[in-house]
Amino acid sequence: MYRTHHCNELTINHINQQVTLAGWVQRIRKLGAITFIDLRDRYGITQLAFYEDADKETFDQANQLGREFVIQATGTVRERASKNPNLPTGDIEVVPHRLTVLNPSKVPPFTIEDETDGGEELRMKYRYLDLRRSPLKNNLLHRYRVGMEVRKYLDSLGFVDIETPFLIKSTPEGARDFVVPSRMHPGHFYALPQSPQTFKQLLMVAGFDRYYQIVRCFRDEDLRADRQPEFTQIDCEMAFVEQEDILQTFEGLLRHLLREIKGIDTGPFPRISYHDAMRLYGSDKPDIRFGMQFIDLTRSAKGSEFKVFEEAELILAINAEKCAHFTRKQIDQLAEYVKRPQIGASGLAWIKWDENGLKSSFDKFFTPEKLTHLAHTAGMQQGDLLLIMAGPAGKTRKALHELRMHLGQTLGLRNPDQFAPLWVLDFPLLEWDEETRRWHAMHHPFTAPKPEDIHLLDSDPGSVRANAYDLVLNGNEIGGGSIRIFDKALQNKMFKLLGFSEEKAREQFGFLMNAFEYGAPPHGGIAFGFDRLVALLGGQETIRDFIAFPKNNSGRDLMIDAPSYIDDQQLHELHITLKYAQ
Amino acid sequence: MYRTHHCNELTINHINQQVTLAGWVQRIRKLGAITFIDLRDRYGITQLAFYEDADKETFDQANQLGREFVIQATGTVRERASKNPNLPTGDIEVVPHRLTVLNPSKVPPFTIEDETDGGEELRMKYRYLDLRRSPLKNNLLHRYRVGMEVRKYLDSLGFVDIETPFLIKSTPEGARDFVVPSRMHPGHFYALPQSPQTFKQLLMVAGFDRYYQIVRCFRDEDLRADRQPEFTQIDCEMAFVEQEDILQTFEGLLRHLLREIKGIDTGPFPRISYHDAMRLYGSDKPDIRFGMQFIDLTRSAKGSEFKVFEEAELILAINAEKCAHFTRKQIDQLAEYVKRPQIGASGLAWIKWDENGLKSSFDKFFTPEKLTHLAHTAGMQQGDLLLIMAGPAGKTRKALHELRMHLGQTLGLRNPDQFAPLWVLDFPLLEWDEETRRWHAMHHPFTAPKPEDIHLLDSDPGSVRANAYDLVLNGNEIGGGSIRIFDKALQNKMFKLLGFSEEKAREQFGFLMNAFEYGAPPHGGIAFGFDRLVALLGGQETIRDFIAFPKNNSGRDLMIDAPSYIDDQQLHELHITLKYAQ
Repeated sequence: MYRTHHCNELTINHINQQVTLAGWVQRIRKLGAITFIDLRDRYGITQLAFYEDADKETFDQANQLGREFVIQATGTVRERASKNPNLPTGDIEVVPHRLTVLNPSKVPPFTIEDETDGGEELRMKYRYLDLRRSPLKNNLLHRYRVGMEVRKYLDSLGFVDIETPFLIKSTPEGARDFVVPSRMHPGHFYALPQSPQTFKQLLMVAGFDRYYQIVRCFRDEDLRADRQPEFTQIDCEMAFVEQEDILQTFEGLLRHLLREIKGIDTGPFPRISYHDAMRLYGSDKPDIRFGMQFIDLTRSAKGSEFKVFEEAELILAINAEKCAHFTRKQIDQLAEYVKRPQIGASGLAWIKWDENGLKSSFDKFFTPEKLTHLAHTAGMQQGDLLLIMAGPAGKTRKALHELRMHLGQTLGLRNPDQFAPLWVLDFPLLEWDEETRRWHAMHHPFTAPKPEDIHLLDSDPGSVRANAYDLVLNGNEIGGGSIRIFDKALQNKMFKLLGFSEEKAREQFGFLMNAFEYGAPPHGGIAFGFDRLVALLGGQETIRDFIAFPKNNSGRDLMIDAPSYIDDQQLHELHITLKYAQ
Repeated sequence: MYRTHHCNELTINHINQQVTLAGWVQRIRKLGAITFIDLRDRYGITQLAFYEDADKETFDQANQLGREFVIQATGTVRERASKNPNLPTGDIEVVPHRLTVLNPSKVPPFTIEDETDGGEELRMKYRYLDLRRSPLKNNLLHRYRVGMEVRKYLDSLGFVDIETPFLIKSTPEGARDFVVPSRMHPGHFYALPQSPQTFKQLLMVAGFDRYYQIVRCFRDEDLRADRQPEFTQIDCEMAFVEQEDILQTFEGLLRHLLREIKGIDTGPFPRISYHDAMRLYGSDKPDIRFGMQFIDLTRSAKGSEFKVFEEAELILAINAEKCAHFTRKQIDQLAEYVKRPQIGASGLAWIKWDENGLKSSFDKFFTPEKLTHLAHTAGMQQGDLLLIMAGPAGKTRKALHELRMHLGQTLGLRNPDQFAPLWVLDFPLLEWDEETRRWHAMHHPFTAPKPEDIHLLDSDPGSVRANAYDLVLNGNEIGGGSIRIFDKALQNKMFKLLGFSEEKAREQFGFLMNAFEYGAPPHGGIAFGFDRLVALLGGQETIRDFIAFPKNNSGRDLMIDAPSYIDDQQLHELHITLKYAQ
């Protein structure tokens, strides 16, 4: 037995008891004839106090210790002279009469404190030390709790966790696969799953009715900031359901999590159509923690000499309430923001309504009456600042969305402790890709069109809406899914629309199409990005801080130094050669 | 809403209620003017009854249905004329007035019944149909329950599920890795983990104290019957523990599972040393559901003209109690069994003690007195049959172990509903490999030697025992683990003993050795083969029947046809070429 208690357990009730603790040396304070050591384990911190007068030998030993040494201390619990009300064990200290160094430690390359001095790369390399810091440790414990609550909720509804294979078959659709050369079948490769999509559908065909899995998925994409080549999904599927059943079930899941993890009840989630989301927020994942919905001024702003407005396909505004006090410089900075290449807007017009009345960036083109009319149309009140963008529809919406988010951030309207979930519904089934000159599935090729739109599949595919839905939280898509096509003829039609030859479709999805011939039930599902969900519930947006051993932006694990070269013998056995000499 | 109830729910309490059910047509019986349909969903079966007289139209529709059609039926619950006490819904039937075919089905390639007529290959190809059969369906539901009980137990003890990466680094030690070529780092490869061993140790260094994961692992080995290239492990690690803590904790886990899943309390598990296991059972995973321990007759059987005994290094026997009635033919069959090439014994000697007294296969060499003496030494009683093997020690033990298991099976002593767990302790740290002429780690290179044996590491490495343990259930190793080395100097010594150059060790395990310099706590762990555990708790030994989508013996998934060729474009992007043209 290395210890009798954890470092969070001892209180005034243990006074005079003999205890043994084990853990890491967090901090050493030498005050003349007394040395204090904060001893840390996963559970908490307990103060050890070494008194030179009482026990010179142990005192001397304690003075030899360094930060992060692993020690075991046996001693007596005493009431502290000066208590620390911020610590569960703050009323007591342990006065050891025996001290054992279980393992010494070199001086860590960065400080193991809540705020550390270590750079990103260094902390990635020594991830096992970074994980000792409370913020990261608590993130992982939080992640575990979220996962268990997911399981509890789904279990209570009869969902069954069924493991699907990791060594599967490469599909050309979607993102790039990671592949695994087969030793036993020369020239053949497995692929790692981008999601268990087809397997969960097969489980519905098999009759399992309600399936879930918290499962690793893989995508070999060019990494953007805070994207991981391997990520975790809460993957779910239900049979004999309509869209409404799924929305209810998984709204229930997120409400359960918010209740259990955050102690919040949001009430029923609002719903918005994809069309309205784009119209009012310029985004299919609006952050509705704050207002600033788009105001369409395309009609009312026209009819002047102001070319920017006259030539624009779309004129949109957001009303920054009570922001009329913004200085010219602040407004210029907003303009700079939207002109950055990532956003690429050509400019920003504005109307300000302060105590001096209305003023705009296009005063010379507008009569005061016309300006007043425009301000009223936009719903401005005194004290408001109206920000206006004009140009091609898609680009303008996107740019104003970015501005809205930026402004929300600036104004402190995106409070990470506030949770505003939202269902986005009625996504288009297909989107046209100019490059390949063909339709792509917006969700995936198995997504069912809305029954009332099926008749448009031939005549006007772009207008067909899907029984597809996203769950959005604070401007992040945390889950998405659809009702699936379970009719073989309709599925074939979809493959045709998506430009799959019959042969290609059969080669890639033959097993699923076969399965659909043997009594596939109506079914649908959803998948949540677990990393993102956990981060958001933790009040943060950086998923890397919620993954035990993440990879960096070029897909490397800096700690174990992977990927790396492999032996020639291994290559030989796998029947492959490298294109370039090592 | 596709249904108001599941197919296991309706009872006499629902009589006269209007209900809607949905599911698969399991069976159709046409009895003149009545057609009965057994409707099946995941939860159960309900009988639908269609009466020609009452509703000709629906009756006619019902007669058009085929097996495995997916239907929805709305009707009234009626008390049955002839009840079926074997079915939870056996008191009632539903008389539908509306019937909808949700999806038709082709005739399945094999019958979807508890006993099917489908061959192994066919059922693998149509796995989604095979999974509809109750035995397989129940296996997966059972697997889920075991998994959840594992989580509940470990959660209650403060274990935390932490996900470790799948894209890691290849290590030459142990079995072959599956590797994943990197697109972003030409010539570099990730490897899929054979186990999260090093990561769970790093999590202990990071201070997580108690870790678990139910996690997929990968081994690219030549497949033996019922081995899978991907398999699932319950992976656990604890810090600040000694071996006894681990044995208690995980004995508790298996007892919890046996109690919750099987309703059995086995009491505390017996323990045996590796040495005694080999001595008494010739195996490090003895099946102790039955006795027949080895009896060493090496001394007492010598001293005759019988060359087989005289020249043998070891003479061992097992006493088949009450088997004196075995015929000559039966005994010959046992001899044939051990002479098969897989076992390779040269023969089988025996002593039989029936109502006519003692008789043996070596009567001409032994006086009656000597035979009697030998029988007594072996502990025979009248009615027993003693089976004796002689030869080189290792081979003889192994062969007699096989014979013991075979006989136990034949005599019905290996009851799958009986559970006999056993700890096997004190494994040797190292085993000598004749081929490579070097020591190999019996468990793995991080296993700690017993402190009292450390002094033998230089002088007599083969005699050093490890703090390693296996949990054996009914003759199967279901879990194994060890206390780890947490001292860097000792770890370096181990690497040296195992023939790792310093450079190689640093290249492969540098990150772990580094981690050990920054305050590694004492720690140890265990991993359970989840597939095997689930199968055994299900009273079976074939793990494939407990995996949703298993691979066949050559590592192929016959349903999705993986592994398969990939595009040249993919190969190109991965910077590899195939050795042989496709």
